[in-house]
Amino acid sequence: MSKTKAPRRPRAETPKGFRDYFGGDVVERKAMLDRIAEVYHRYGFDPLETSAVETVEALGKYLPDVDRPNAGVFAWQEENDWLALRYDLTAPLARVAAQHRNDLPSPYRRYAMGPVWRNEKPGPGRFRQFYQCDADTVGSASMAADAEICAMLADALEAVGIARGDYVVRINNRKVLNGVMEVAGILDPSDPEKFAHERGIVLRAIDKLDRLGEAGVRALLGAGRKDESGDFTKGAGLSNEQADVILAFTGARRATGSETTAALRALVSASTIGGEGVDELEAIAALLDTQGYGPDRIVIDPSVVRGLGYYTGPVYEAELTFEITDEKGRPRQFGSVAGGGRYDDLVKRFTGQAVPATGVSIGVDRLLAALAAKGLTGAEAQGPAVVTVMDRDRIGDYLAMAAELRAAGIRAEVYLGNPKNFGNQLKYADRRGAPVAIIQGTDEAARGVVQVKDLILGAKIAAEASLEEWKSQPAQQEVPRPDLVAAVRRILDRT
Amino acid sequence: MSKTKAPRRPRAETPKGFRDYFGGDVVERKAMLDRIAEVYHRYGFDPLETSAVETVEALGKYLPDVDRPNAGVFAWQEENDWLALRYDLTAPLARVAAQHRNDLPSPYRRYAMGPVWRNEKPGPGRFRQFYQCDADTVGSASMAADAEICAMLADALEAVGIARGDYVVRINNRKVLNGVMEVAGILDPSDPEKFAHERGIVLRAIDKLDRLGEAGVRALLGAGRKDESGDFTKGAGLSNEQADVILAFTGARRATGSETTAALRALVSASTIGGEGVDELEAIAALLDTQGYGPDRIVIDPSVVRGLGYYTGPVYEAELTFEITDEKGRPRQFGSVAGGGRYDDLVKRFTGQAVPATGVSIGVDRLLAALAAKGLTGAEAQGPAVVTVMDRDRIGDYLAMAAELRAAGIRAEVYLGNPKNFGNQLKYADRRGAPVAIIQGTDEAARGVVQVKDLILGAKIAAEASLEEWKSQPAQQEVPRPDLVAAVRRILDRT
Repeated sequence: MSKTKAPRRPRAETPKGFRDYFGGDVVERKAMLDRIAEVYHRYGFDPLETSAVETVEALGKYLPDVDRPNAGVFAWQEENDWLALRYDLTAPLARVAAQHRNDLPSPYRRYAMGPVWRNEKPGPGRFRQFYQCDADTVGSASMAADAEICAMLADALEAVGIARGDYVVRINNRKVLNGVMEVAGILDPSDPEKFAHERGIVLRAIDKLDRLGEAGVRALLGAGRKDESGDFTKGAGLSNEQADVILAFTGARRATGSETTAALRALVSASTIGGEGVDELEAIAALLDTQGYGPDRIVIDPSVVRGLGYYTGPVYEAELTFEITDEKGRPRQFGSVAGGGRYDDLVKRFTGQAVPATGVSIGVDRLLAALAAKGLTGAEAQGPAVVTVMDRDRIGDYLAMAAELRAAGIRAEVYLGNPKNFGNQLKYADRRGAPVAIIQGTDEAARGVVQVKDLILGAKIAAEASLEEWKSQPAQQEVPRPDLVAAVRRILDRT
Repeated sequence: MSKTKAPRRPRAETPKGFRDYFGGDVVERKAMLDRIAEVYHRYGFDPLETSAVETVEALGKYLPDVDRPNAGVFAWQEENDWLALRYDLTAPLARVAAQHRNDLPSPYRRYAMGPVWRNEKPGPGRFRQFYQCDADTVGSASMAADAEICAMLADALEAVGIARGDYVVRINNRKVLNGVMEVAGILDPSDPEKFAHERGIVLRAIDKLDRLGEAGVRALLGAGRKDESGDFTKGAGLSNEQADVILAFTGARRATGSETTAALRALVSASTIGGEGVDELEAIAALLDTQGYGPDRIVIDPSVVRGLGYYTGPVYEAELTFEITDEKGRPRQFGSVAGGGRYDDLVKRFTGQAVPATGVSIGVDRLLAALAAKGLTGAEAQGPAVVTVMDRDRIGDYLAMAAELRAAGIRAEVYLGNPKNFGNQLKYADRRGAPVAIIQGTDEAARGVVQVKDLILGAKIAAEASLEEWKSQPAQQEVPRPDLVAAVRRILDRT
């Protein structure tokens, strides 16, 4: 026989930058999103699930990284159109608000949860598919809409288990920033395009204040900044005096909201738009005060700007303030888990009519990581009771045991691998995170009993207990077959 | 000023064949999937969420329409790979089972729920993105795994509200079919590739038995069939005698399972593989009997074949047996909502080692349509109580009312559009499906009261009631401000 070349087997791999989510990860994310959805629902927000695929034309060029307007999406050509996977949940909302403007209630409050895709270079912890969770109000110019989103965000964080005091929602206003830009001489109201490039650099520089500190931001406002790796980022080319104005703004936070807005008002007194922005901040602060959202939950903080170019008024961000230990063992604040703001021009792209809108996006993976850091995850994910197979011919009996347990609301399954090696069955139960194993051999069947093994206690005893303790607290007990459910429940209630 | 051409606005449209899901649709699907997931979870199945994007190589060519192996997916080229959106949840499972074979428990029971994408010509009711809901057991050759999936499927259907008697899970076996093919002379065990094309036609012909009847299938088994539109489909070219064998098989269902398997055994007595298939059917039937899943829920039915080419043993299908009225006003059975079977070769593509697997896929949109036809949807989707804005300066008070209602667990929101026209506010409440509107003008505020308007009763009275009834049963009542929550709750409890 001649040697024929075997066909090459396909590689069993996700594409680079993609990942799978297993068992507990799916359950935990779902539990968290369900709790958030419950809060959003109670606030009158309706779910919206748009298609994952949009026309490139409808998506527009609103990616956060404004330096690469055309890159960043997964796109392919259809007969007449270029199609792409959505890169966020805001662009599809703008499309929906335009497409269905005659059928949707106005204002339209909606929330959306689902994956988005970014065609970026993958890196450690950076994936090309990830979840977002957004809530937006389209069609309301009222500052009450912004205040509501911020209050709802605080409620949502508490609903998933972040304690009051462990988070703060910080609010600022782009109009105030524009006023500051005017005062600094890099925004001319009569020629809005002038200095647009510089303002973009300023925006992104301020957004890095947390990470780079004032000196780093000052460098980016001026000639530029060389980072630790030696890479040079060109700056906005502002003079020292201009940078002083910007940094006076970012540093304008005072002890109370009214002191902060007073400081801001002084700073932008020469600018109409800046004054408007301060008015808006005051309105939001007053509404939140009325409802009892004090500075322990929501504060006015001029250092918040949000990187996105499309915000036109209030911007806000939720930060977790508890400390974690970073990968280098240093303590640091957990940081931002959500952000948003007012964007009055996104729907206008489609219809020509300005539609006021405001909304927030929660970074789902970040918030999940925060819950994990706080020890708030894991409870949801318990393995099933595993019924072992001692006697291959009596599989029907084992299936009946599992069915009985399930009918009593207990998660249960029968081992369906090759039953020959009993050790493999217990290894399987271990890998499944099973709290209980049920065993019934020919002898037990004849006597009408089953063995119920407490695997969690068993592991504990094996690790810690002395022989006396082991004898006094057996991890395995024999019970009459009719008592199976009750015996398993006793063990589950104990754990 | 010279006339400048305005830039063309993007069209606010989903790509052809894609759609958005709003409010109630999202809530209802989620409620249904949550109930199914609860059943799957109780059976010991773990959730798995794979990435939407796979390499084309990993996806393979397992689309249902075997005539077009390469079409049907949305694909695009990356640096070195072709990437594509998954077209089902089984191909990604096979990839996961191969990729993580050293870390997953074996057998691995998993369920998956999520969108899949098909690059097909869209049509009425045919979309290019839709939901699937799958449950599979990978790594068990035991017929108990197949029996378990069928029992779990029956439980899941009852959990979402399909009454016993309104559905039936039908089971068959591909090995029996192969035995029949052998007997009919279109399968030669020593040369499995021979007649593969004919067998494909036979498979798809049998799958259309419901729709075309025996005569139509006989035509497809023979020379071919001309449909109502005049289009001709070429047949498998079988002789009348060969077609008789096939149709004896599809018609072999008898009153009881054991009579059916006896009829099948007689039919395939000349075939080893056919006999094996009958053994498997008998094993499944016995296991289901032990657990009380009688023929009112699960039956052996040789007319079930499932179109997919990759099944290797048991195949199963859930059919809803209640009647609906089709678009032409004729009564017909609702039909299939789920199907699956055993596929022992999918993981082997990656690893070279055969891994036995079996699983089912529920057609999420079909099942949702069935629930709607049965009047089982809609309860979940109630609008919020709407607090109207009579006095723009007192929006803080209105927000406080909504907050109070929410704190009591009542869905509530404040109208945040332009409050000038009160009629618009009530129209908004109507569009929101609001059961209650809350009204407090300057006068009511001064007197410490609010008006609570029962919108559902109001609409009913407006439509039906006489003036006397209207007076005796007012849809609007004035209550002291502290009684707001109690008054709203009374109305909600009534509806």
